[in-house]
Amino acid sequence: MISLADLHRRIESGELSADAALAQSLEAIAAQEKTIGAFVCRAEQPHAQTAGPLRGIAVGIKDIIDTADFPTEMGSQIYRGNRPRADAPIVVALKRAGATIIGKTTTTAFAANDPTPTLNPHDHGHTPGGSSSGSAAAVGAGMIALALGTQTGGSVIRPASFCGVAAIKPSYRLLPTVGVKCFSWTLDTVGLFAAGVEDLAMGLSAMSNRPELLLDATMKPPRIGLVGQEFAGSPEPAGAEALRVAAAAAERSGASVRALALPEIIAEAWRVHPIVQEFEAHQAFAWEYRQNYHAMPPLLRSRLDESQGTTAVEYDKAVKVASRARHALAGLFDEVDVLLTLSAPGAAPKGLTSTGDPRYNRLWTLMGVPCVNVSAYVAGGGLPVGVQIIARFGADAQALAAARFVEQALKQ
Amino acid sequence: MISLADLHRRIESGELSADAALAQSLEAIAAQEKTIGAFVCRAEQPHAQTAGPLRGIAVGIKDIIDTADFPTEMGSQIYRGNRPRADAPIVVALKRAGATIIGKTTTTAFAANDPTPTLNPHDHGHTPGGSSSGSAAAVGAGMIALALGTQTGGSVIRPASFCGVAAIKPSYRLLPTVGVKCFSWTLDTVGLFAAGVEDLAMGLSAMSNRPELLLDATMKPPRIGLVGQEFAGSPEPAGAEALRVAAAAAERSGASVRALALPEIIAEAWRVHPIVQEFEAHQAFAWEYRQNYHAMPPLLRSRLDESQGTTAVEYDKAVKVASRARHALAGLFDEVDVLLTLSAPGAAPKGLTSTGDPRYNRLWTLMGVPCVNVSAYVAGGGLPVGVQIIARFGADAQALAAARFVEQALKQ
Repeated sequence: MISLADLHRRIESGELSADAALAQSLEAIAAQEKTIGAFVCRAEQPHAQTAGPLRGIAVGIKDIIDTADFPTEMGSQIYRGNRPRADAPIVVALKRAGATIIGKTTTTAFAANDPTPTLNPHDHGHTPGGSSSGSAAAVGAGMIALALGTQTGGSVIRPASFCGVAAIKPSYRLLPTVGVKCFSWTLDTVGLFAAGVEDLAMGLSAMSNRPELLLDATMKPPRIGLVGQEFAGSPEPAGAEALRVAAAAAERSGASVRALALPEIIAEAWRVHPIVQEFEAHQAFAWEYRQNYHAMPPLLRSRLDESQGTTAVEYDKAVKVASRARHALAGLFDEVDVLLTLSAPGAAPKGLTSTGDPRYNRLWTLMGVPCVNVSAYVAGGGLPVGVQIIARFGADAQALAAARFVEQALKQ
Repeated sequence: MISLADLHRRIESGELSADAALAQSLEAIAAQEKTIGAFVCRAEQPHAQTAGPLRGIAVGIKDIIDTADFPTEMGSQIYRGNRPRADAPIVVALKRAGATIIGKTTTTAFAANDPTPTLNPHDHGHTPGGSSSGSAAAVGAGMIALALGTQTGGSVIRPASFCGVAAIKPSYRLLPTVGVKCFSWTLDTVGLFAAGVEDLAMGLSAMSNRPELLLDATMKPPRIGLVGQEFAGSPEPAGAEALRVAAAAAERSGASVRALALPEIIAEAWRVHPIVQEFEAHQAFAWEYRQNYHAMPPLLRSRLDESQGTTAVEYDKAVKVASRARHALAGLFDEVDVLLTLSAPGAAPKGLTSTGDPRYNRLWTLMGVPCVNVSAYVAGGGLPVGVQIIARFGADAQALAAARFVEQALKQ
């Protein structure tokens, strides 16, 4: 994979030109893209900028995010040839930081479940996950150093786990979702994919103009709460093993690790996530569902068909449960710095008919807390499995620092 | 003015056809629009639907709200000829409820301060207020029975006060802002304009599928807390008189009215509103400001120029103040059912160079609580002045019921 932080250091020191850094991505894309299929369209004559911390960095943008220079087709025929007038603010933020937008990456239609043709770079017979399929696969295949995705259930952390890349779903609204196709306004969160945690920190800091997100040189061993998410069912052996391996490595490196039981209200929040998501999706996709019913992606359409009966009363109740659960969760962070839990049930499923199961992700999206995926284990067949490190709402710097600690511990 | 509830009753009883109801609006538009200038474009061959609670009702949509059937130009040359592919969910909600979208109403560019040419229907030498200028003026002039606007500072309640119409800024996110041009995601709220409170309740209930928002036949006198908002400065005599008149009428009709002092944290929230608004606006308008600086509306551009230095640290602090203030405000509603306060400093200012001052509105937008404007007083020159009734977050039904009580009291 291409490390953003490494490229940055070499460009800053004068060892590498921004043009040469960009050329590295272009070569990798020329070699890999035909097989992986991570992009829906690419810049015709990309060039490196001359200033900014992300100069020379090729970035892929999930195709539900508005771009003025590329079509934004949402993975759906309903938006074929759609050309937004403006870039989404997060795209402008990347450009302002010096990045080169290299192209749009594949997305399941409207960031739901209907799979893309993108292949998992670690085993072409497996899904890269979704909905941010192209972004995860493009970084995982070493084509680009940074990519944007979005998560409503588990669409950033899960594909990152399946593709063996680092990813952050920041605190809710740390990055604006303006100009991003809405699925659920309470849940939709923009996230980043990169080779490692330091790369994520550099990308997120540059985009958000928040220097405090850059990692310290010193690494304090975190107090870790180990969370099994039993309410979400049991993991596969590979998922369980990834969590065990990560916890053991962190403890060996000096972190305190202790099992943490989540209060019942948090399990309840896990259960109501689909109510919030589908009730809002019915409004967010009102035009598509009403005017283009037959052109709707079939899996999303079925979900909408099935959830038609959800009432405003049920939704209001679910929103209140989420609010109480956020409160309860905040209390847990008085005892531990971060939580460590599963990123996915196991390795990427075989085939391209499913993008995998977001059951270990959706709670944290509803809680709005920062989640970082770190690759922890390689299952049979060479497929990676990640774990997620979760901090208090707003403590994105702490989530990144602890994730970096776990990442380093796993290398020892 | 045209009453939605009245049309609805007559259509339901068979006394009036939906077509005839729609024709009433078309005639009024033909008579008034040339003078008032409330619309930027109108449906060429509008027709009434045959079903739905809003059949026969002509609705105007503020031109920062996406429509598939009309251009959406945001009041700015930057979006000239802009044709969104989809209707915003709130537009679909209106259509689904049977309404006829009659046209797009004028908006200050990007819903900021740069005035439109729209005139106040009560005195053509005065502003109708902004930013939802056309929606307020179109209802105030009796052209249509319902219109949508948006409020980030005071862009629904203030023009409603100036144009003598009822309006509701519902609880934050009761109506989705998907497909609405973003100014500030923490603040932007979709609101409704109509002739009276019952009309608002019917419109909001139909759009949101929430029957509980319809008014009860019985009216319980509310416990009212009278709020002066001294931190926002003194009102003009007409504003103060409107508040006095409304409080006295409510008390006469059996409501309990007592002066309520707001805790300091709430005044602090009033002070930080512009920090939240401008920091988010810099991101929301990143593309326009960076790519179309010289085409930006001058007043908005100046605001962005002046607030360039706002840091993420200041913003984070402001968001925390708002959160504490929301908590404190919720506590006040244990003692009173609603607050009664100023909708605007006074009557609509003379001339079209300013859309008036949102200083009595912005706090409540940041608090996310439902606010209803009720016309309370007629100042010299025949210009109306309103007051606002404010309920606890989520208690939109209670806000409407209390506003209806005040409205009726003022008629006695």
